[in-house]
Amino acid sequence: MFTIDFRLKHEDIKLNPAQTLVMGFAAVILIGAILLNLPIASKNGESVGFINALFTSASAVCVTGLVVVDTGTYWTIFGQVIILLLIQIGGLGFMTLTTLIALVLGKRIMLRERLVMQEALNQFSTAGVVRLTQQIIITTFSIEGVAALLLSIRFIPLYGLAKGIGYGVFHSISAFCNAGFDLIGDFRSLTPFVEDPLINIVVGSLIILGGLGFAVVMEVWNKKSFKNFSLHTKLVLLITGILLSVGFIVILVLEYSNPDTMAGLTLKGKLLSAGFHSITPRTAGFNTLPTDKLTMASIFFTIVLMFIGGSPAGTAGGVKTTTAGVILWTIISEIRGKADTEVFKKRIPREIVSRSLAIIGLAGTLVIIVTMMLSITEKGPSFLEIFFEVTSAFGTVGLSLGITSNLTNIGKLLISFTMFAGRVGPLTVALALANQQLRNKGHYRYPEEKVIVG
Amino acid sequence: MFTIDFRLKHEDIKLNPAQTLVMGFAAVILIGAILLNLPIASKNGESVGFINALFTSASAVCVTGLVVVDTGTYWTIFGQVIILLLIQIGGLGFMTLTTLIALVLGKRIMLRERLVMQEALNQFSTAGVVRLTQQIIITTFSIEGVAALLLSIRFIPLYGLAKGIGYGVFHSISAFCNAGFDLIGDFRSLTPFVEDPLINIVVGSLIILGGLGFAVVMEVWNKKSFKNFSLHTKLVLLITGILLSVGFIVILVLEYSNPDTMAGLTLKGKLLSAGFHSITPRTAGFNTLPTDKLTMASIFFTIVLMFIGGSPAGTAGGVKTTTAGVILWTIISEIRGKADTEVFKKRIPREIVSRSLAIIGLAGTLVIIVTMMLSITEKGPSFLEIFFEVTSAFGTVGLSLGITSNLTNIGKLLISFTMFAGRVGPLTVALALANQQLRNKGHYRYPEEKVIVG
Ligand SMILES: [K+]
Ligand SMILES: [K+]
Repeated sequence: MFTIDFRLKHEDIKLNPAQTLVMGFAAVILIGAILLNLPIASKNGESVGFINALFTSASAVCVTGLVVVDTGTYWTIFGQVIILLLIQIGGLGFMTLTTLIALVLGKRIMLRERLVMQEALNQFSTAGVVRLTQQIIITTFSIEGVAALLLSIRFIPLYGLAKGIGYGVFHSISAFCNAGFDLIGDFRSLTPFVEDPLINIVVGSLIILGGLGFAVVMEVWNKKSFKNFSLHTKLVLLITGILLSVGFIVILVLEYSNPDTMAGLTLKGKLLSAGFHSITPRTAGFNTLPTDKLTMASIFFTIVLMFIGGSPAGTAGGVKTTTAGVILWTIISEIRGKADTEVFKKRIPREIVSRSLAIIGLAGTLVIIVTMMLSITEKGPSFLEIFFEVTSAFGTVGLSLGITSNLTNIGKLLISFTMFAGRVGPLTVALALANQQLRNKGHYRYPEEKVIVG
Repeated sequence: MFTIDFRLKHEDIKLNPAQTLVMGFAAVILIGAILLNLPIASKNGESVGFINALFTSASAVCVTGLVVVDTGTYWTIFGQVIILLLIQIGGLGFMTLTTLIALVLGKRIMLRERLVMQEALNQFSTAGVVRLTQQIIITTFSIEGVAALLLSIRFIPLYGLAKGIGYGVFHSISAFCNAGFDLIGDFRSLTPFVEDPLINIVVGSLIILGGLGFAVVMEVWNKKSFKNFSLHTKLVLLITGILLSVGFIVILVLEYSNPDTMAGLTLKGKLLSAGFHSITPRTAGFNTLPTDKLTMASIFFTIVLMFIGGSPAGTAGGVKTTTAGVILWTIISEIRGKADTEVFKKRIPREIVSRSLAIIGLAGTLVIIVTMMLSITEKGPSFLEIFFEVTSAFGTVGLSLGITSNLTNIGKLLISFTMFAGRVGPLTVALALANQQLRNKGHYRYPEEKVIVG
């Protein structure tokens, strides 16, 4: 928050929004790593080692959920509280920062052209930064608080009052922030609750709400009618709906008679777990079915969902639902012979189409290069296990086929970097490195010339 | 040729260029399948079975090179001649058709805006369709003839005069058309010639020439100076150069001490095979190293190269070098904060950026869906083997980790369809199905509205 306030007052400061975001996140990760590296964070009284501490801190701040040690059994209460704080800072801070940046950037552009999320953020344009931040924090804590109570209903009978409430709070925050960290123990995630409607529905709802992004949740809350929503909100809701429905059907069909996953479950358990596993790759990282026992087709399908991820300016990772939406409607418009990308009787501006292409290109390149590097550094795992792990890290999902603990040090650093790049966005990282802002310079335009593609 | 002439005379015929192309190719594949299904095509005197015949015909016409039976030992001379004819029709026909379509479409657009490849095709705009077709055929046969002679220098001492010349002709056509079929036997491809500079250089040059596309080869031939080339030609040459250089270095580094591939070779053999394996994924399909013995990182890298493929309006498949170039420069322009995709002091038109996004999206979706389907139908192969096979089919490459022969019938049909879609292009297939032409309708434009992506 400080950094943003600072920027707003001193416009001459040299850090652009992308750099502010990248530097801020890196600083929080480093502090988290130093704290988790302390012997008092580990139950065995010995330091976990700096690379493991860094990995865990990066995973928490980037709300990924990949873990090299089991969160429930390895860390002390101190360590677990640190992790929870890092998750909350990472999730809330990122949501606030990206919403603010969208607002700040939006304001500059508004004078010249239609505004990004103008409709959605209208109510904040005069309320100011402090008020918006307050609203985000209050909304977040309210949702997390209600969910923590609901989860405690299940956890208190299992773990006693204090631990039960603690588990309720931890998993509520972890779910809303799409962090995917759990305290259940032995890397089991939520598999013991595969048949439990309460856990499935509460955690699933938290994941979806957090993944939609604050602005979308607020617009839905305030306007109610789909017709009046901004194009951004419409696109987020539609693509999210498509991904959830398709995911539910595909997972249900592929796993229905898999003896290692759904075959032994009741019909209720089958439906719940199909629903949960269409939700979790975008980008929560909890699992109720054993991820490594899924069919090959489900695993690959999950990789695709993880790559797409959730929606912008929320707690989710991936290339984002809106980017997928722009691609989908660009394909439809091409096939229908239209020059513009049209959806809901609106034109998607050409520069958004360009940016989507850049994001897909950068994200794909990142996943490809890291996968290649891990294929060299890691000797044991299969290609699918590595590919899954890298996509999970990039999408800040946290699902794993079980190779995280056994990664080499180089592998752990590579995955940490991938989580970081996935969290702040590959384009943001590139922009920060290039010391440039997202803007349209008023510059000389070169003449057009066509090329044949495809 | 008939179909195109027909269209030019009777503009009211309902088939659009995309449909003409799809129907024509499908017809040739079917005729080829019927002929290869005859007992006289098989050395053992029994029909190979229709699905195997269809697969082989599709692989030949789509110049892919994936084979369910070994070309050199299974088929009779009759069968091999049929395959060679299918390759030549597929390669030459496609190059001619796509060049003509570019020309015909280009002419219509020319009146209103700058022309696709206007510079490159200027010399043909008055010469007419017959003349252009003649030029393509003469160029093709000249290149293939010279190369056949050179290859015979190596093959005659090995196989005798008649068979040596036959092998020279077959492999020359197969290489120039990027078909990747070989007669060496036992699925060995060109592995016996890994240390042979003549075979490597001649076959490598044929692959590159065929993969550049006729218009690019002609423009380079006529203009000589890079500065005067059209943007299309510049982009094709630059991206091809980048892919070849990067591919050479990556393969050399990754395989240098791999005991199953390069470790036992001389330095000359190492350099030749690194060069050859940077050329062959784009999209020839010959191999001099055993593909299934490459390191995991090389195999994944090869998948990426196969997906990109060669250049448009030639004999290569994949999403094409120019599409990759548009993505690359869109990323660069985004990072530099420019609204336009700029390269060589020219602007890439926005509709080309849109089309690139649509092509990448469709191609990715196709590869993902077919890979998922094969993951269900095929029980034996690993994920990497299936993913490699599907990308190879889509890119009409023809490299395989060795699973082609053992595919189920459904698997063979899926791969046949993928080769077909990869050959004519997923966008063309979609356009043919949608009964639409690539055009900009003069229609009502919806108002713009932004969304947040990435
Ligand atoms: K996560
Ligand atoms: K090929």
